[in-house]
Amino acid sequence: LKTFSLTILGSGAALPTAKRNPSGQFLNCNNRHILIDCGEGTQNQIRKHKLPLQRISHILISHLHGDHFFGLVGLLSTMHLLGRDKGIHIYGPPDLEQIIRMQLEIGGSRLPFSLNFYPLQKIKNQLIFEDKVIEIHSFTMKHRVDSWGFRIQEKEKERTLNAELFYGEKRSMEHIPALKKGLDVELEDGSKLLSADYTFPASKPKSYAYCSDTMYFEQILQSVLEVDYLYHEATFLHKELDRALATMHTTALQAGEIASKAKVKNLLIGHLSARYETGKELLAEAKSVFDNTFIVEDGDVFEF
Amino acid sequence: LKTFSLTILGSGAALPTAKRNPSGQFLNCNNRHILIDCGEGTQNQIRKHKLPLQRISHILISHLHGDHFFGLVGLLSTMHLLGRDKGIHIYGPPDLEQIIRMQLEIGGSRLPFSLNFYPLQKIKNQLIFEDKVIEIHSFTMKHRVDSWGFRIQEKEKERTLNAELFYGEKRSMEHIPALKKGLDVELEDGSKLLSADYTFPASKPKSYAYCSDTMYFEQILQSVLEVDYLYHEATFLHKELDRALATMHTTALQAGEIASKAKVKNLLIGHLSARYETGKELLAEAKSVFDNTFIVEDGDVFEF
Repeated sequence: LKTFSLTILGSGAALPTAKRNPSGQFLNCNNRHILIDCGEGTQNQIRKHKLPLQRISHILISHLHGDHFFGLVGLLSTMHLLGRDKGIHIYGPPDLEQIIRMQLEIGGSRLPFSLNFYPLQKIKNQLIFEDKVIEIHSFTMKHRVDSWGFRIQEKEKERTLNAELFYGEKRSMEHIPALKKGLDVELEDGSKLLSADYTFPASKPKSYAYCSDTMYFEQILQSVLEVDYLYHEATFLHKELDRALATMHTTALQAGEIASKAKVKNLLIGHLSARYETGKELLAEAKSVFDNTFIVEDGDVFEF
Repeated sequence: LKTFSLTILGSGAALPTAKRNPSGQFLNCNNRHILIDCGEGTQNQIRKHKLPLQRISHILISHLHGDHFFGLVGLLSTMHLLGRDKGIHIYGPPDLEQIIRMQLEIGGSRLPFSLNFYPLQKIKNQLIFEDKVIEIHSFTMKHRVDSWGFRIQEKEKERTLNAELFYGEKRSMEHIPALKKGLDVELEDGSKLLSADYTFPASKPKSYAYCSDTMYFEQILQSVLEVDYLYHEATFLHKELDRALATMHTTALQAGEIASKAKVKNLLIGHLSARYETGKELLAEAKSVFDNTFIVEDGDVFEF
């Protein structure tokens, strides 16, 4: 069962190109709709790819460079014009709230839905949201301005009932919750129902992590450990390492190294500098250290 | 000789649609490159229509509703990334400067070119820029927030020399400036060179006016009098007059009336509400009172 669907809205870096919009990703995780970063034109991309704009409940903004948030105020305005009344939760750098509220106020907009801002904190790894099914963690990265990565993961799941066996033996439903939790049940006659007999192992919780923008920074390894998909920026080729260091970005080779060291299952690279017409060389470079690498294009969808 | 070239970058209202971006116009007037309004995605439209982004020297922002300025900070960032060093002149509502500078500062951007902001004043009609060839005027309109219209016009031109006659008679070049100004010249022998004989009448200065957003407001008539092209918002059909009044917008019928009363040559209508799939009815309505009306689409070019 695929419970994550990730759509790439923008795969470019600060300078937009005809093919690559600035950063934005739309993540559907167990029907929680999460927008990660929101560069200029993100609302157009959401519309173009026919994604449910009004169902977005959480917005995560990594840092305050324009290509990651200049589209946010326009998106919120459009939500308003489309009649939204459900509140929205925005996690971002502390100054974000002021910028957004100021622009809305100056235009005389009183949003009829609540804008809930949660300033990200400079903490190595922090749980910023959870409900019954998912968790979102933020973690600090290293860039020219404060920048955060995000990990969205499912919670530990319950084991699933072997319904055929269980109901075939006409067992009482009252025992199901315990069995699903992995607990054995002692019956009145002294016999035992073993969880291992009546349930199948829980499927492994899936996870996704987003890292953009940051320089190569091993402190994030623990935060992205073993995720199913890691999106990591790969702005430059390694032969441009000087430029990557000066601008505090990552090379494709380094992104592959992070993926390898964090033992992730798949690596997605993006945030490609406009200087590269295709991502071919970047992909080859990352694959040289981590084979399960994919380069993302605007509109790509990953389901897992 | 066509000295004005106007490209429509966005013809929609606040809610963008697949076909209509928010407001933006690129005006080339005698090789002065002027951007009028800058909704989200305007930089993409400039690129898409292959217009010279870095040659924009003046930006005019009508008012602080997002669909007219949310694209400005991104445009300035892109100019920076593309290596601009030439300063830029921005005319807009007083609060605009603070919003733009704040966003750039928070992102750590130090633009290597000067941003010169000129706050618009609440004056009925004001000359805000002039050089040898053109003038730009602002004028107050009436909307939910302070809103200004703009008139861009050529200065009075000189008469043009009848070179064939003048040089055929081997006249001295020193007389040309006076003749071009319409002055007759008395020669040493007492005879006269009549300007009317040796020059052709000056071509009439051309002019363009932009009015969006505003409700029907006759005080602007003097400011847009007899322009060659008037762009006027026409957000609604007249049967939605209540809605137009409540939101302080203009109906297509009213836009036609303004054009008629101001004796303009041509009327362009735009800023169409997203509720109208085509502009057909809006066009018909405006034409019922002013025949020379055109409805604009994104990408349209008008040369005059």
